[in-house]
Amino acid sequence: MSLVLDAAAQDLLFREAHTANTFTDEPVTEEQVQAIYNLVKFGPTAFNQTPLRVTLVRSEEARARLVPLMSEGNRPKTSTAPLTAILSADNEFHEELPHLFPAFPQAKDIFYTERSARERDAKLNAALQAAYFIIGVRAAGLGAGPMTGFDGEAVRKEFLDDDHTPLIVINIGKPGEAAQKPRGPRLAYEDVVKTV
Amino acid sequence: MSLVLDAAAQDLLFREAHTANTFTDEPVTEEQVQAIYNLVKFGPTAFNQTPLRVTLVRSEEARARLVPLMSEGNRPKTSTAPLTAILSADNEFHEELPHLFPAFPQAKDIFYTERSARERDAKLNAALQAAYFIIGVRAAGLGAGPMTGFDGEAVRKEFLDDDHTPLIVINIGKPGEAAQKPRGPRLAYEDVVKTV
Repeated sequence: MSLVLDAAAQDLLFREAHTANTFTDEPVTEEQVQAIYNLVKFGPTAFNQTPLRVTLVRSEEARARLVPLMSEGNRPKTSTAPLTAILSADNEFHEELPHLFPAFPQAKDIFYTERSARERDAKLNAALQAAYFIIGVRAAGLGAGPMTGFDGEAVRKEFLDDDHTPLIVINIGKPGEAAQKPRGPRLAYEDVVKTV
Repeated sequence: MSLVLDAAAQDLLFREAHTANTFTDEPVTEEQVQAIYNLVKFGPTAFNQTPLRVTLVRSEEARARLVPLMSEGNRPKTSTAPLTAILSADNEFHEELPHLFPAFPQAKDIFYTERSARERDAKLNAALQAAYFIIGVRAAGLGAGPMTGFDGEAVRKEFLDDDHTPLIVINIGKPGEAAQKPRGPRLAYEDVVKTV
């Protein structure tokens, strides 16, 4: 075997894990979300900029504001998931850089004076962190249902502010009955990886 | 404990893993890269679009073309890493969608007739897959050194084509001496996660 990671962990995180579309009633606790964050916060980002921000939609009032902003096919599962999280990129992450990347505190002023540069890097690096977060949800033995089908501008206005760009909304919980669609095919190694 | 993933796997993938900046001479084999891909290919993307493409820079000739396109601080480690991979987004991923997402073969024509929509979704979803790939490198017991400091347009011209956007260049190998900088601080849970 070329992998060091044990087979059970491979299954939990990748091989057996599927996107969950239905959930049991079991709540997702604050402790579970803390454990997920405190694991995946160590995933690498450029200059350790860690621009991901997470909005946990827990109250019924907040959920009622979110559901209509999802695309139609995503509404039923977002209505019933034990927990829904809005993952966003903080476009003002550079304010934290001198603290987060003390080896090169000038990065803030050299690379990030332009908002467009901040938005570009925040989006890429928050997306990396969103993937770590999905892995973390699975590491907690939970099912993740990430969704990009929603009105981003409306979600920003309703839950965030001009400095944050929503990237992914994710339902979280114990997978319920018929939670998973059949696994879609994946591209063959030869179609994805080229050697030069 | 709120996590199901065993502690050794937590350490291997997140807690003990650091970005590697030096490497031993030990080669990274084709079998290892195949094992990494065949694990992380299962990570979720929107409509299973899996737009990540990987260019393995193995020949000395190709490495000599890549190194000058990296930002200055990234050149020495890219010169000496056992393997360097260019991770890119395929902006024409939609051609594969009817095969990859048979549940909704119309997605290709409903959502992706515009190149700008394809570029946006390819970038986000390939970034998710880039993070899964970094996790996979660690799952193989290797060090990953992801870098965004390079001339993207030059890398595209030299190694890819107009349909591909390079996102991250990543050095891969067994970490060498003094491979890791001290771990940077991470944001506290309270500064990242809000509940509504």
